[in-house]
Amino acid sequence: MNLTRQPSPAAVYNPRMLSEFDLIKQFFRRDRPGRATLGIGDDCALLTPTPGRQLAISSDMLVEDRHFFAGADPFMLGHKALAVNLSDLAAMGAQPVAFTLALALPAADPAWLDGFSRGLFALADACGCELVGGDTTRGPLNICITVFGELVPGHALRRDAARVGDDIWISGTLGDARLALAGYWKELALSPDDQQAAAQRMHLPSPRVALGLALAAQPVAHAALDISDGLVGDLGHILAASRVGATLDVDALPAGPVLARQDRGLRRRFTAAGGDDYELCFTAPVANREKVLEAGRASGTAVTRVGKIDAEPGLRLVDSDGAALDLRLSGWDHFS
Amino acid sequence: MNLTRQPSPAAVYNPRMLSEFDLIKQFFRRDRPGRATLGIGDDCALLTPTPGRQLAISSDMLVEDRHFFAGADPFMLGHKALAVNLSDLAAMGAQPVAFTLALALPAADPAWLDGFSRGLFALADACGCELVGGDTTRGPLNICITVFGELVPGHALRRDAARVGDDIWISGTLGDARLALAGYWKELALSPDDQQAAAQRMHLPSPRVALGLALAAQPVAHAALDISDGLVGDLGHILAASRVGATLDVDALPAGPVLARQDRGLRRRFTAAGGDDYELCFTAPVANREKVLEAGRASGTAVTRVGKIDAEPGLRLVDSDGAALDLRLSGWDHFS
Repeated sequence: MNLTRQPSPAAVYNPRMLSEFDLIKQFFRRDRPGRATLGIGDDCALLTPTPGRQLAISSDMLVEDRHFFAGADPFMLGHKALAVNLSDLAAMGAQPVAFTLALALPAADPAWLDGFSRGLFALADACGCELVGGDTTRGPLNICITVFGELVPGHALRRDAARVGDDIWISGTLGDARLALAGYWKELALSPDDQQAAAQRMHLPSPRVALGLALAAQPVAHAALDISDGLVGDLGHILAASRVGATLDVDALPAGPVLARQDRGLRRRFTAAGGDDYELCFTAPVANREKVLEAGRASGTAVTRVGKIDAEPGLRLVDSDGAALDLRLSGWDHFS
Repeated sequence: MNLTRQPSPAAVYNPRMLSEFDLIKQFFRRDRPGRATLGIGDDCALLTPTPGRQLAISSDMLVEDRHFFAGADPFMLGHKALAVNLSDLAAMGAQPVAFTLALALPAADPAWLDGFSRGLFALADACGCELVGGDTTRGPLNICITVFGELVPGHALRRDAARVGDDIWISGTLGDARLALAGYWKELALSPDDQQAAAQRMHLPSPRVALGLALAAQPVAHAALDISDGLVGDLGHILAASRVGATLDVDALPAGPVLARQDRGLRRRFTAAGGDDYELCFTAPVANREKVLEAGRASGTAVTRVGKIDAEPGLRLVDSDGAALDLRLSGWDHFS
């Protein structure tokens, strides 16, 4: 219901004016058999859980001018809004099943909706994750996705499961998204090609779903999370939940291809505390090193060993010689 | 991650400045055993579904100045944000289990968060629905809740299940929320007492969870939905999905206690197409009349028979003598 406008009689037909129901029908309802017992169009969606599986649930809200720039490309935004949620499933080792989408839009713009829904469904289809319901309303642009996955009980990659002696691993590469942001912010000047290449990583992150599944099988890994607010801050959550410390070899952190060509100071800062990486940070016993590498190969995802879980509390940053580094890094905090 | 501000070093301690993590810990994390296998604090929440049950999922987004007034009382807002979602579960006949909360806030105001979280949890606890995860970010005030319920396969009260000859029933009373809005909008003048009484219905709707469960058992009812955008528009969804028509006795519609004292024209308009009612509209076979009344008694919810499902398409509004009424009503559309 709408407090600020009274209901209006049917407007003269205008192809650029979409009702809430037309909007859902045209861009988000798909006539194909899905996993859901009942999808979009009723008070609730109905899902029949796979017997014996646990349900993993995550919710992320993306706000204009906070998580993305005003005027952001709608296709990339559709991709990213789902990708950041799938990344949470990946970090638990869960198989994506379904998601809901709640969308506040300043206007029902068909061109924007077309791009957004194409970006959203391209990734959803690639990951076998079905849109089963949601909400649309008018308001400042806000995208809230809640995603559902399934996993074998006891196989979830929890933040509190790191053990002293575990290796710390990183998927893919870090820092190119932060580098793109530095370019947008004019903190540094990148060539147009470099800016575009780095921006791809920022706008089109690849959720590491296949790697997460491979790491949760058996399970190969102990603890995991996805790196959204910068590695140092996010790793801190594993350390706190697991009541352990860690030593991180900052020079071992895999930099994105554009960042890899920048100077060492920038590489260190942006790999260790960049943000918006959507890579996995996980811990695994030393005995599983070969299995971790095999999980990386099987999922087509690079994995790099970057540190060690210690009994001593706190996070120690060291260089490639093991000497302490004082980098003064911090994670993102939306309310600091 | 935050595009518009750079990460800042730890600020000087200020009790009115809350970090994102403090905010969640202080207002939303509760140290009590719950239904979830893993709750707030990891990448995903983990739920273990009840064997043999289906999962019902619904998502609603509430936007300031659209679904509630700027400056709305935070306790009532916390109640209402969850109530509108529980109302969707009620309309399917599902048992509430858990929910996620994504919250965009202009600022982390402890007084607001205290009221909001108290209103939210008062209703959550009353319905046995556990907060298992979510997201907080800075942005224009936006509340997105996704709720999960469980039901016996085949017992869901779907919109497409109305049958020709079914009675149409309404829970509770209609129109007082719309009357309160008319008072706010100065469409009419209510006494302060009447305005306040009507506003209670607008701000603190009671989701009809117990009635929904009673109607889905056996099942007693065929089709159901919750009335959020006005009865006439919402009943239209049942008619379209079930490919049937209906005759509605507008004078039989149960008006809220304040609206019941207004003139007949206003009663008819606001009961038939008020909006923000969060009552159930459901259909049931004539043979189940006694069972419907018993479901109402068992759940402590008034139920009123207001019409009939017809084979002839379309919705016919009639008065208490069965004469056709032309009321020119329409439902809410957030994008019209």
